[in-house]
Amino acid sequence: MEMKTLREEAFEANMEISRRNLAIYTWGNVSAFDAGAGIFAIKPSGVPYDELKPDNMVLVDLDGKIVEGNLKPSSDTKTHIVLYREFAGIGGITHTHSAYAVAWAQARRSVPVFGTTHADHGAGEIPCTDIMSEEAARNNYEQETGYLITETFRQKRIDPLHICMALVAGHGPFTWGKSAALSVYHGAVLEEVCKMAFLTLSLDPAAQPLPQYIIDKHWERKHSPNAYYGQAPKN
Amino acid sequence: MEMKTLREEAFEANMEISRRNLAIYTWGNVSAFDAGAGIFAIKPSGVPYDELKPDNMVLVDLDGKIVEGNLKPSSDTKTHIVLYREFAGIGGITHTHSAYAVAWAQARRSVPVFGTTHADHGAGEIPCTDIMSEEAARNNYEQETGYLITETFRQKRIDPLHICMALVAGHGPFTWGKSAALSVYHGAVLEEVCKMAFLTLSLDPAAQPLPQYIIDKHWERKHSPNAYYGQAPKN
Amino acid sequence: MEMKTLREEAFEANMEISRRNLAIYTWGNVSAFDAGAGIFAIKPSGVPYDELKPDNMVLVDLDGKIVEGNLKPSSDTKTHIVLYREFAGIGGITHTHSAYAVAWAQARRSVPVFGTTHADHGAGEIPCTDIMSEEAARNNYEQETGYLITETFRQKRIDPLHICMALVAGHGPFTWGKSAALSVYHGAVLEEVCKMAFLTLSLDPAAQPLPQYIIDKHWERKHSPNAYYGQAPKN
Amino acid sequence: MEMKTLREEAFEANMEISRRNLAIYTWGNVSAFDAGAGIFAIKPSGVPYDELKPDNMVLVDLDGKIVEGNLKPSSDTKTHIVLYREFAGIGGITHTHSAYAVAWAQARRSVPVFGTTHADHGAGEIPCTDIMSEEAARNNYEQETGYLITETFRQKRIDPLHICMALVAGHGPFTWGKSAALSVYHGAVLEEVCKMAFLTLSLDPAAQPLPQYIIDKHWERKHSPNAYYGQAPKN
Repeated sequence: MEMKTLREEAFEANMEISRRNLAIYTWGNVSAFDAGAGIFAIKPSGVPYDELKPDNMVLVDLDGKIVEGNLKPSSDTKTHIVLYREFAGIGGITHTHSAYAVAWAQARRSVPVFGTTHADHGAGEIPCTDIMSEEAARNNYEQETGYLITETFRQKRIDPLHICMALVAGHGPFTWGKSAALSVYHGAVLEEVCKMAFLTLSLDPAAQPLPQYIIDKHWERKHSPNAYYGQAPKN
Repeated sequence: MEMKTLREEAFEANMEISRRNLAIYTWGNVSAFDAGAGIFAIKPSGVPYDELKPDNMVLVDLDGKIVEGNLKPSSDTKTHIVLYREFAGIGGITHTHSAYAVAWAQARRSVPVFGTTHADHGAGEIPCTDIMSEEAARNNYEQETGYLITETFRQKRIDPLHICMALVAGHGPFTWGKSAALSVYHGAVLEEVCKMAFLTLSLDPAAQPLPQYIIDKHWERKHSPNAYYGQAPKN
Repeated sequence: MEMKTLREEAFEANMEISRRNLAIYTWGNVSAFDAGAGIFAIKPSGVPYDELKPDNMVLVDLDGKIVEGNLKPSSDTKTHIVLYREFAGIGGITHTHSAYAVAWAQARRSVPVFGTTHADHGAGEIPCTDIMSEEAARNNYEQETGYLITETFRQKRIDPLHICMALVAGHGPFTWGKSAALSVYHGAVLEEVCKMAFLTLSLDPAAQPLPQYIIDKHWERKHSPNAYYGQAPKN
Repeated sequence: MEMKTLREEAFEANMEISRRNLAIYTWGNVSAFDAGAGIFAIKPSGVPYDELKPDNMVLVDLDGKIVEGNLKPSSDTKTHIVLYREFAGIGGITHTHSAYAVAWAQARRSVPVFGTTHADHGAGEIPCTDIMSEEAARNNYEQETGYLITETFRQKRIDPLHICMALVAGHGPFTWGKSAALSVYHGAVLEEVCKMAFLTLSLDPAAQPLPQYIIDKHWERKHSPNAYYGQAPKN
């Protein structure tokens, strides 16, 4: 993939954060990853969306070295690096401050599968990490944020290509996917699923998750080899 | 009715889902039914709204055979077929993932008639089905979704031409009407009624339904032979 | 006032319902009253907002006789007549189905004065009527809706020129003012105040109303002879 | 700074209230302060946003004298004066009636730091004042509103350049910053933070604040001498 395309892909996905109302002002960032080159394009830090241009995107490698770009990359760059290193097969990462996802992260709760809207996009709960330890926070905060996510997936034995969403406790959502566009799509899905789960618990604090056989059915019809949803298989 | 018109009717009603914010992305589908021909036009599966065109709509008969169209029809097509077969007199069906209706479905609660906004559009609670059994889910999921709805109406003795809305437990809303346009209108009404009922229960968890004599009055002034609401009788 | 102007005033105020998101579709109506002529212009029943024109507005007198217009007036016309007859000095009435106001009406609760946003527009709670009796509902429903409001104001000794808003239990909000424009302004204020009061009670179910001396202060600075808010006195 | 620029700065920030949906109609006001001249430009009282022009902004000095302008300044002008007098270093003040911030003010609760969205903009709770005493309310209401804020910051030993937001009990939010633009930015941040905190408490009434070491980390990365967020240091 050309670096020009990578920057454009990252740019487009960053603008989508604003269009989908997943963050106000500059609160959010998306990166697009070229696995072959080991380089990703990421939003510069603190630049308003209406001043963003494809040329603003900063190219960074997996050691955190700036390959190209005059601006500082997002302050969350090290979190992106950890996820690209640990989650083989992903091509984009999105971080937003969408309100319902943040609320679940602040309440430090994983999101149960209450319905098929959720199951269509992941066959299990959306995990919330533990709160970061003082040592980790003082050590290398953004890198440790990445490790919080990857450790949670490892411990809970969740496949990051099946559930492409995580809540960092006390912080907010990170989502990913095969492309930058899909990562921001998952950011929008997560916000909608978090809103629905919030309303469900408000109606019934003892609401029951969907039975596993319906979760499986919805996941299979969209994502298994026998998927029959959509015009062509996609993640 | 010509098939061209049927496709246009289905197309217009599908676009209305997006305009009324009843689903994000492609989460939803509407079909328009020609009862004389036994054929309905339905949204293709997984096509974004901004790529939809009237020509994209797929024509399907009541055996599920594709009569015309190059794309796969909505994955919920079999649910539509069951409703057209069982609910005589309807001409359109809408399925959305609107947030408040989904929340009631996920909480597996029927929506009581708390006020006249509800009563204007149905003289009784909006029923929520039971959760689907494992056998049914494994057997023929989308067809069984239709049967869940029709069985609920049969058991509760609800006339589907009086209450044109149902919640499928753990899934979300299906609505219908004499036309595709009215089915999506009922989808928007249901979302608004579910929001109002949610807020009502938040204010007072023991909120009382409207007395039956007011429910009857509102239904009669809009839908009975002596209706005096609107310029001409309509459903 | 000329009848042409009255129709235009009513038309403009009706369009404002839609622009302010106080109702979806045709759920709502505004009338503009010429007290000298004893005639008001009101929205026709069940006509979509995008088909409304000033010429569509129906002119009705206080006996309910249609003075001019080819369409049927709003089904709530008799409620408007009662309010114009009983509340001397008002020049416009608005009825909406805005969600938070409806929720308070469905929970059958008057809205306490929790803050200055409320106090700026009324120095006391916004009253909710009792639920209508079966006899009244069967007798003359829309007229009785008006009486429910006027009786509530009489019993609670509320001056309808000081508090221009009421909730009809199980139904929704009616608001009024010196003009049609001010009546719809009060409809928008009521929705915002109901939303704020809802959120307040969610945060603290035992939330205390504002002390009377602050309520009085805010009312006085906007509405008393010594008002100093705004560029010129208005209601 | 030229007075023309000051008026334009105030005008732009006032329009931002409306664009960011922080108040309906004219409910809100922003001023821009020229500390050297001891003069601020403030929105005129009760003028609709669509009639506002830079020339409408009223120039007022710290004694409350109108330096230039044909319209009456905002009724909250005396509150602005107290804050400019007491909070050295601020260049703009914003008052809105945004719904979630008002709800916390009406519930008379300070907003705990539940997450990093909050910590990014202030390393401690957003304080809510006490309710104003009867004597103060009768004496000089708007001035006393300012004193409520400054006294709260003094008693709680909060640095107004670190936490640029306050809730006035039973009233609503006041925010400030180094410029008028930053003050309205803080108004938008406060509303978002209040919404997130509201949702968090709804999910878990016993939700725990963020540990202090994460609060400190987020504050430091954006605002300390070693800040690394954004392209250049700003408040």
